[in-house]
Amino acid sequence: MTQDERVEERAVDEMPWAEVTPDAARRLLVAAVEAFAERGYHATTTRDIASRAGMSPAALYIHYKTKEELLLRISSIGHEKALMILRRAADGEGSAVDRLTEAVRSFVRWHAGHHTTARVVQYELDSLGEEHRPAIVELRRRSDAAVREIINDGVKAGEFDVPDVPGTTVAVLSLCIDVARWFNTEGRRTPDEVGALYADLVLRMVGAHTPRQAAQK
Amino acid sequence: MTQDERVEERAVDEMPWAEVTPDAARRLLVAAVEAFAERGYHATTTRDIASRAGMSPAALYIHYKTKEELLLRISSIGHEKALMILRRAADGEGSAVDRLTEAVRSFVRWHAGHHTTARVVQYELDSLGEEHRPAIVELRRRSDAAVREIINDGVKAGEFDVPDVPGTTVAVLSLCIDVARWFNTEGRRTPDEVGALYADLVLRMVGAHTPRQAAQK
Repeated sequence: MTQDERVEERAVDEMPWAEVTPDAARRLLVAAVEAFAERGYHATTTRDIASRAGMSPAALYIHYKTKEELLLRISSIGHEKALMILRRAADGEGSAVDRLTEAVRSFVRWHAGHHTTARVVQYELDSLGEEHRPAIVELRRRSDAAVREIINDGVKAGEFDVPDVPGTTVAVLSLCIDVARWFNTEGRRTPDEVGALYADLVLRMVGAHTPRQAAQK
Repeated sequence: MTQDERVEERAVDEMPWAEVTPDAARRLLVAAVEAFAERGYHATTTRDIASRAGMSPAALYIHYKTKEELLLRISSIGHEKALMILRRAADGEGSAVDRLTEAVRSFVRWHAGHHTTARVVQYELDSLGEEHRPAIVELRRRSDAAVREIINDGVKAGEFDVPDVPGTTVAVLSLCIDVARWFNTEGRRTPDEVGALYADLVLRMVGAHTPRQAAQK
């Protein structure tokens, strides 16, 4: 990752919905994430969301025609962010150990740092209508492919020993995603610390030859 | 595990709410699990649950005073089952490798085989009232302690190499729990197959010395 990319990534981390404009549309999205996380998608009304954002239902309607449009926007942005993180790691310089370390660290950091959003993105998938599902499934397929690619590269290069690449890929992503469920900002570990621990554990899962040295870089 | 215990465990697997009697109370609990999983706790009414069970709201009220009482019963039974599985593995005969293998296999099998219930148990924790939370938190603490105990035993016996026991314990449980999110009965792997793969991956996470031989026993 270049210095510019790091700065850009930090900016995205700090203002996760920066791509949503105008400001009113962004405030409504943030309110929707909070409401969905607290009460679930089906128990939330557009009126609840508008009220949380300090706006009228009519003002919400200018930006989003339906509650589902809000969920779709949250889900799309969340899945695109996940894919960007994993794709950047897969396309990075360095050995498979370096790239898998980077993938796990940044993916975990995102799920810990944005655990409320991540829960909505991961647990409300079934609330999306049939017509919107395929686009999201495609983003998930590409995220899975990015991790599988790094693992396959590591196996080919003799860095990893993985008897079941598809199963291990699912497990690595799953381990990172579940951070959103248990991570608590009042807990003892920071997102960076969980990321470093998990990178070490994942290098063990793929049988990397010098896991701890690589994870401590 | 003795033959009797295996038979008993299979029976519990096949009839997960066998401990709930009379029959009407059990039917209502099963209906509540389905409704909570589909629409979320807050979007479900006791009327929805009664109707799914083919009963009147008045009939529901004979067995459960509130919707929260249903959630508490589901959560308690689910957490007790999880603890029973992990405690039995921790208290079992054999090496730490054997016991950790058994813990992961049976914990994963439960989360895969009962993924709808497991999702409600895991994702609706925050919907329980403050007064009920401590009892559930205590069950979770004891589940965590069972896995930590096996890992500590393995470290002491020189079977495992684990620099961060509490963090690794959280990760092992987390990996297994997230099976409930992604496991799909139409997928390519059975609960037993996922359990075997995950036992192998977890033995790698704890740096067990002969992971594959042990997992294939």
